[in-house]
Amino acid sequence: MNKVFEEITELSLKRALFYPSAEIYGSLAGFYDYGSIGFRVKKKLEDYWRWFFLKSLGENFHEIQPSELMPEPVFKASGHLEHFEDPVVECSKCGFVERADQLLEGFLHMVFEGLSSEQLDELIKKHGLKCPECGGEFKRVFSKSLMFGFETRKGMVYLRPETAQGVFVDFKREFKANREKLPLGLAVVGKAFRNEISPRQALFRTKEFTQAELQVFFDPEDEKHEKFSTIEKEKARVVLASERDKGEQLLTAGELAGRGYFEKYVYYLFMMKKFYESLGLKELRFYEKNEEERAFYNKFHFDCEVFFKSFDSFREVAGLHYRTDYDLKNHEEHSKQSMEIFANGRKFVPHVIELSFGIDRTFFALLDKGFRKDGKRTWLSLPRQVAPFVAGVYPLVSKDGLDEKARQVYELLASEFDVFYDEKGSIGKRYARADEIGVLYGITIDYDTMKDGTVTIRDRDSTKQERVSISEIGQRIKRVFDSLYY
Amino acid sequence: MNKVFEEITELSLKRALFYPSAEIYGSLAGFYDYGSIGFRVKKKLEDYWRWFFLKSLGENFHEIQPSELMPEPVFKASGHLEHFEDPVVECSKCGFVERADQLLEGFLHMVFEGLSSEQLDELIKKHGLKCPECGGEFKRVFSKSLMFGFETRKGMVYLRPETAQGVFVDFKREFKANREKLPLGLAVVGKAFRNEISPRQALFRTKEFTQAELQVFFDPEDEKHEKFSTIEKEKARVVLASERDKGEQLLTAGELAGRGYFEKYVYYLFMMKKFYESLGLKELRFYEKNEEERAFYNKFHFDCEVFFKSFDSFREVAGLHYRTDYDLKNHEEHSKQSMEIFANGRKFVPHVIELSFGIDRTFFALLDKGFRKDGKRTWLSLPRQVAPFVAGVYPLVSKDGLDEKARQVYELLASEFDVFYDEKGSIGKRYARADEIGVLYGITIDYDTMKDGTVTIRDRDSTKQERVSISEIGQRIKRVFDSLYY
Repeated sequence: MNKVFEEITELSLKRALFYPSAEIYGSLAGFYDYGSIGFRVKKKLEDYWRWFFLKSLGENFHEIQPSELMPEPVFKASGHLEHFEDPVVECSKCGFVERADQLLEGFLHMVFEGLSSEQLDELIKKHGLKCPECGGEFKRVFSKSLMFGFETRKGMVYLRPETAQGVFVDFKREFKANREKLPLGLAVVGKAFRNEISPRQALFRTKEFTQAELQVFFDPEDEKHEKFSTIEKEKARVVLASERDKGEQLLTAGELAGRGYFEKYVYYLFMMKKFYESLGLKELRFYEKNEEERAFYNKFHFDCEVFFKSFDSFREVAGLHYRTDYDLKNHEEHSKQSMEIFANGRKFVPHVIELSFGIDRTFFALLDKGFRKDGKRTWLSLPRQVAPFVAGVYPLVSKDGLDEKARQVYELLASEFDVFYDEKGSIGKRYARADEIGVLYGITIDYDTMKDGTVTIRDRDSTKQERVSISEIGQRIKRVFDSLYY
Repeated sequence: MNKVFEEITELSLKRALFYPSAEIYGSLAGFYDYGSIGFRVKKKLEDYWRWFFLKSLGENFHEIQPSELMPEPVFKASGHLEHFEDPVVECSKCGFVERADQLLEGFLHMVFEGLSSEQLDELIKKHGLKCPECGGEFKRVFSKSLMFGFETRKGMVYLRPETAQGVFVDFKREFKANREKLPLGLAVVGKAFRNEISPRQALFRTKEFTQAELQVFFDPEDEKHEKFSTIEKEKARVVLASERDKGEQLLTAGELAGRGYFEKYVYYLFMMKKFYESLGLKELRFYEKNEEERAFYNKFHFDCEVFFKSFDSFREVAGLHYRTDYDLKNHEEHSKQSMEIFANGRKFVPHVIELSFGIDRTFFALLDKGFRKDGKRTWLSLPRQVAPFVAGVYPLVSKDGLDEKARQVYELLASEFDVFYDEKGSIGKRYARADEIGVLYGITIDYDTMKDGTVTIRDRDSTKQERVSISEIGQRIKRVFDSLYY
């Protein structure tokens, strides 16, 4: 975290992008609210994700909305109740707690994810680490569940730690309702909850967060993808678990498929890449987790990482997981309900590729990428798909009929675009405010407007202004959208 | 609940509208999932709500997204920890539990909401009510909290029982970010959670549900509404608390304002009415709660009730509450943070009108209203704003190039509208399936299409078919939307 991170956080507070929850009560670490501007961006990001993955790919993909609270048997079957926990160190003197791997990471500047409590304990002893708050000794490393559980009269219920489990338990019903065809994609965009020991870095590790997850159910004997040839020669930056010594490599889809990752998997990896690139996040790579790092049910696991100025490093924003038939088989066993389906001439339990996106992290990546400072001017260069407003409409001054005219222009545009009207303060201040929240255009009504019916359109990024007649504004905006929306 | 209710529930299971959560584990009462078709309707309903209340009214109204889990002090201040509980009866023999007022309601067919535990206890004794399961005696009526609470290292956190509290704690920050203007509207569309004793009637009383709530902050000395004259002569069916003996009355906005409900309040009551009417839910009334029934912090409280075929009665789908400055003042007191603002030349704590909508109940009202059966045909006459698809595109048969042509028509329409392609089964079965989920139009490509480039467009409600040339389909659909979208 550096100055950029601080500047973005500060801007977020000022401009209602995001801020700590229950701030007036001192707030609780790990909870953030989206403000009136931030929520516009977040909603557009979610809707763009839906458009990209559920509509534009043209596959049999649908969204459902399962409950966030689910009963105990679901998480017994999924393994979350037994395995979903973090290793924790606690100071024996002052009670300070921290995730053991993160404590080590902070001291030794290496990654320790995936080590056992015993291994972490040994490392802490070996390096003689002491409490950073009071210098006290640490107790033995222990495990702590990340699940939020609530007792009810009918047994425990838990807030889901990932949206995926709702999809697995609903699979059979959705398969039937969607014409019994594979592949079938079932997505959820919604909240998930993890009782993290050390929430940190603003939206980056929180206790309540938004995921967009897509589970693609497919026949394991049908690993090809009909559109694979369209991406076969495209390249992605990858770090392979088996070739980590080689570091980052630039490999084509075809080369990846040649290394044993099957076509469908590689195809969706490139769709992830395309999604982020279409949002201007082009500095990205796919980092494969090795056997110790990945969950035991994932056969393949790549993190999709984007470069953040705020951290001066790559950070995970999404993941691509080949979960095999692990989840459906476990739910079959625990629920005694068959998860077999009949397709392609035989009965079997489908396999699953999971595309899992952190919406908050992606949102933050967009702020990080878009944040610009140039002398006194600060602006957010957000991509068109997620800018909170297309345009602000401003009368140069609020008199001589300019305000009325501006209101008319606003009304004209409001039925088709996200625009706002603003007459408060100097025109410079209005531009500055709009720049800070990433508004694409400023449309100003001045004295010339009253004579010749033209307005100025100011571009957020270049600040260049152009004169356009009122009747052409709509077409002008649409043209930009058509050429750039995905 | 009657046959219509059962038929809707059955259709919902079959067509993935909604179904019990974690069904494969026997499910838990009070939790439902939205399936792939139901979610489309729900999302469109939410987006239409946003359009109607946050955009088309043209006021300073914004949406935010506060956390669902909030720390204890929030709900101490709001009064939920102390007061948000239900009176419960429990059988001393078999352990059966039920909300005391609902038990009485079931036996005596009267409404007992708002009575104290003592009063309910007396009534149960007076009428000699016994356990409906085993005939056993009931224990004394006691109170049970509706809050889902969870212990963390930093104190208790609770799932919000209403979305409103997030808005109140964020008010000051949003007021500042939104140019310090009143009225200011802050909306939340999201989940809320109540640990109900007796969840029931499918989506009607659940433990996890979706609210769309809008808090309008205003200057209590400015009770007028600038657009009041536009609705002054419109009429609404109301039952007033002070004139309950008169039953339903048809009163104009002006007459209501004359009875002491101020202009702003009455204006939003009519906007609620307009919203439901625009969705085809025209059989509705506003039922005012009296002092015992309403929460003590509400000065005015009208339930917006819609007539349900499923229950053969009016049921609450939304509420309009004048919460005064109760919430802000309480948060001020508990947080020691001033909630005063400077506006209209003085300092004061704003007052609040709350428009609170049950999205699940409204969704269910749309199914209830739209459900039609006519001989063998079943269809959902959903309004255009929320129909899951605008059209299905079907080749009459999947040969002789009809399927290819139909794919082309699908591609042509897909970029602009929610359409789907379906070639499986007889054309009659495809129409039947589409009718059952409320698809507005069926577009069929037949042998004539190959000759003259025309298709048939079939209307869901009338089943009438019309021949239209392919190039005109888009215009045709748009025309219908323009004339009917609100």
